[in-house]
Amino acid sequence: MTLTGESFIGRERARSTTTFRAVEAASGRTLEPPFHEANALLVDRAAELAWSAFQSYRESETQQRAQFLESIAEQIMALEEELLARVAVESSLPRARLTAERARTVNQLRLFAQELRLGGWRRVRVDPALPRRIPLARPDLRQYQVAIGPVAVFGASNFPLAFSVAGGDTAAALAAGCPVIVKGHPAHPGTSELIARAITAAANAIGMPAGVFSLLQGASHALGAALVSHPRVKAVAFTGSRSGGLALMRIASQRPEPIPVYAEMSSINPVVLLPDALVQGAETLAERFVESVTLGTGQFCTNPGLLIAMNSPALDRFVSATAAAMERVSASVMLTADIAQAYAAGVERLQQHPQVSVVGRGCDTPGLVGGRAALFAVDANTMLAHAEITEEVFGPSSVLVRCTDVSQFLKVLQHLEGQLTATLHFAQTDTDLARSVLEVLEGKAGRLIANSWPTGVEVSHAMIHGGPYPATSDGRSTSVGTLALERFLRPVCYQDFPEALLPQPLRDEIFASLPHRYDGEYRSP
Amino acid sequence: MTLTGESFIGRERARSTTTFRAVEAASGRTLEPPFHEANALLVDRAAELAWSAFQSYRESETQQRAQFLESIAEQIMALEEELLARVAVESSLPRARLTAERARTVNQLRLFAQELRLGGWRRVRVDPALPRRIPLARPDLRQYQVAIGPVAVFGASNFPLAFSVAGGDTAAALAAGCPVIVKGHPAHPGTSELIARAITAAANAIGMPAGVFSLLQGASHALGAALVSHPRVKAVAFTGSRSGGLALMRIASQRPEPIPVYAEMSSINPVVLLPDALVQGAETLAERFVESVTLGTGQFCTNPGLLIAMNSPALDRFVSATAAAMERVSASVMLTADIAQAYAAGVERLQQHPQVSVVGRGCDTPGLVGGRAALFAVDANTMLAHAEITEEVFGPSSVLVRCTDVSQFLKVLQHLEGQLTATLHFAQTDTDLARSVLEVLEGKAGRLIANSWPTGVEVSHAMIHGGPYPATSDGRSTSVGTLALERFLRPVCYQDFPEALLPQPLRDEIFASLPHRYDGEYRSP
Repeated sequence: MTLTGESFIGRERARSTTTFRAVEAASGRTLEPPFHEANALLVDRAAELAWSAFQSYRESETQQRAQFLESIAEQIMALEEELLARVAVESSLPRARLTAERARTVNQLRLFAQELRLGGWRRVRVDPALPRRIPLARPDLRQYQVAIGPVAVFGASNFPLAFSVAGGDTAAALAAGCPVIVKGHPAHPGTSELIARAITAAANAIGMPAGVFSLLQGASHALGAALVSHPRVKAVAFTGSRSGGLALMRIASQRPEPIPVYAEMSSINPVVLLPDALVQGAETLAERFVESVTLGTGQFCTNPGLLIAMNSPALDRFVSATAAAMERVSASVMLTADIAQAYAAGVERLQQHPQVSVVGRGCDTPGLVGGRAALFAVDANTMLAHAEITEEVFGPSSVLVRCTDVSQFLKVLQHLEGQLTATLHFAQTDTDLARSVLEVLEGKAGRLIANSWPTGVEVSHAMIHGGPYPATSDGRSTSVGTLALERFLRPVCYQDFPEALLPQPLRDEIFASLPHRYDGEYRSP
Repeated sequence: MTLTGESFIGRERARSTTTFRAVEAASGRTLEPPFHEANALLVDRAAELAWSAFQSYRESETQQRAQFLESIAEQIMALEEELLARVAVESSLPRARLTAERARTVNQLRLFAQELRLGGWRRVRVDPALPRRIPLARPDLRQYQVAIGPVAVFGASNFPLAFSVAGGDTAAALAAGCPVIVKGHPAHPGTSELIARAITAAANAIGMPAGVFSLLQGASHALGAALVSHPRVKAVAFTGSRSGGLALMRIASQRPEPIPVYAEMSSINPVVLLPDALVQGAETLAERFVESVTLGTGQFCTNPGLLIAMNSPALDRFVSATAAAMERVSASVMLTADIAQAYAAGVERLQQHPQVSVVGRGCDTPGLVGGRAALFAVDANTMLAHAEITEEVFGPSSVLVRCTDVSQFLKVLQHLEGQLTATLHFAQTDTDLARSVLEVLEGKAGRLIANSWPTGVEVSHAMIHGGPYPATSDGRSTSVGTLALERFLRPVCYQDFPEALLPQPLRDEIFASLPHRYDGEYRSP
């Protein structure tokens, strides 16, 4: 089936008078077809349709909603080569990565389906009536979590499948019972259209209301602003730049009815190298670090953009080995020309910085719009005094902060902003120092990693992909893993209602079959 | 012990050059001693001390923290007559109410202690390593919830014990592992000082770090603004007016590091009277309604400020009976002269409104700064067109919205803003209509009440005292009940750490003894 370039307003398609084009990053060649830029009128139609769908979708049977998610996964797999070919040309990402990302995307949908069937997501709490309590009787109180309303999801450029139209935010919101309106990322509109087709087919197959899903195509900021401003939209999920996330936070907080924004924005993912870990394996650490920092041309939210270590001969060995390993890595095409330019500018800025030295560069590849790896070094006092040195450079670049002693080293850690991840490399003999480091890092990051690397995010129950500001707009949440569902729920308490008027999950025979709390006691059937 | 009028900065006391006075609302008489107005310097000292205490307090043993909460409860009871006498004169609330409120306050502290001991509040999730998984091994992932940081608590005027210095917000934040800085309400500074003394005594007895609690006395907005702006403060809890809550939300969102604000602001708590409930018991409903709307001179967040019903002879009976019952209720002193004036102005505004009619007034009591009850009536179309008619009037006032038919009735319900509570009175024969009403109301309120009244909030596991904006700033939370603890937590994931470096709750032998999820499965030991 050919692409039409239209937006999806529930089951209908919509065009407009303005269009934009997808571009093959590697060649700069524009791709067919033109895509219609959605406008405020379409935002309004999608939002009203989502609101109308919300009234029935939030009450849909858990089983039916689980089937919907699984059907989306099936429909995505059924797109087969058409999907893989389009996303490859739009993203310039290699086939093996895209196949893996597709697997992650469909497994994510299936995990949320499984989570729904486990039933604990309702978080039911029942406090039975105590009619004879003195001085006052206690009413029957039953609490559960309900869907918050239509959710605006902003697709990310760097995961055109797993963090885009049918990515983690969409899966979590749909699982929670919230209709989703996606603002597609303009770097991969063809991919977005194909995935929207899969979601719409699944919605039709399972008999979901029309407005449960819409896709608005567009390259303008005005489109995103109109979506976040719409009164029917009750939450926002975003993955992207700090400036983009801050803009959405501002719009959301200034609405007549402010709404929550879950923006995953920027993180430099510090990697802390403790002394004996370096002594025991500087060369291996260097190789693994270069693999992690250059993976996917460094275009991961969890890319290790900062190394922190104390000066030692072992650290010098690490630096030499890193420089040597980096030289062997060829530059590769980045997701878009804009990203490649921003990366080049960021690297140039560090290169020209009088107090920053270049200690490693990747190998250049002529002709490619390329992300050429870079490692810089700076002493701790300079890092502490110059915030611009540790600003995120999106791509395969990292900065090593050299500390003179433990006290300076801990000071550097305390100085860090909020992060998605923080990684610690330590030997057995570093354990005491590791403990002090962890005390600081737990307050800084959503995920702490031992003797490994931050790239690679498991989609599971215990994963946290989030962290204190500015890593995200809301450190109390995660955008990966089943806990992500809770972002789109709110609690409601029913007092003294008869069975006939209680929502299904709060009725005697139903809640007893779910994980729940009864008079405070935790019960797992 | 006499009152000193000082603020509490951890274990130290602080004075300043500016003072303010407590006032006996009934007489207008100023009370001894003068209270020192805390300034930005004291905010900074309290916040730095809280930050320093946070480093050890967040890691304190659950058992020790539970004892701390219980010790606060004991110390409050030990204040005996000194406390009751002072709060009575400062608040003008009757003794029986204050004794009950004190019981609620100490029971609340004890409930959080019990919640800590149950252990589920950590919300531990463990996904064990799958080293042989194809294509990629899964690491060991362990998630739990950690304290967010120092919390600023704003005491409310209407519950000088249960929503003030040692109220629900303080209890929840301390339980979560967060130091608390209270900005005391200037309407009851003596009560605040006594309670702060109790908390400080408990902190000393249990060996808590000095900065775990501070009390800043003051009447100025600048003090609150300085507190919410301070970089060491990581969350805000507030109960009060909509304008006050909005001001704090604005300050918090404009900080370099935005922080969550849990503001419980305004709610008119609609009470929906279905036709057959009125037919069967108009007179009893009227009596109970008047009791609820005048309880505590109407100074409850859950006061029933709106009645919604369809025109019928039974509704006319309800109106007559309400008018008669209201006439028998004497006006009583309100919390402060400001509140009494605002109430009088609000009632006057409705009385003068050309499309609003007065259907009942309480009995005036000469000489008292009094809250005289009032019931107004308006037709549904007028209510839909005039937002000012349903603005909260804090005190014993309510507006009856008369609807002509079911469709108009549902339109009125859909028109409502977010509420703390929504109450439904129905007979068995109203069940079908009740179901349609509940579908609308679930999206509007945090607590739904069947055939009872909204005043009276149980402190338990299943309670929700919260609701969509503008009832609160964050409808995903509650300020009463054990779920309130989660407002001050954030999740962290540990990847691949050895036992020796894992936090206690994530170690094998510990997590197995707590309610937790293992590879997704719910387990309750």
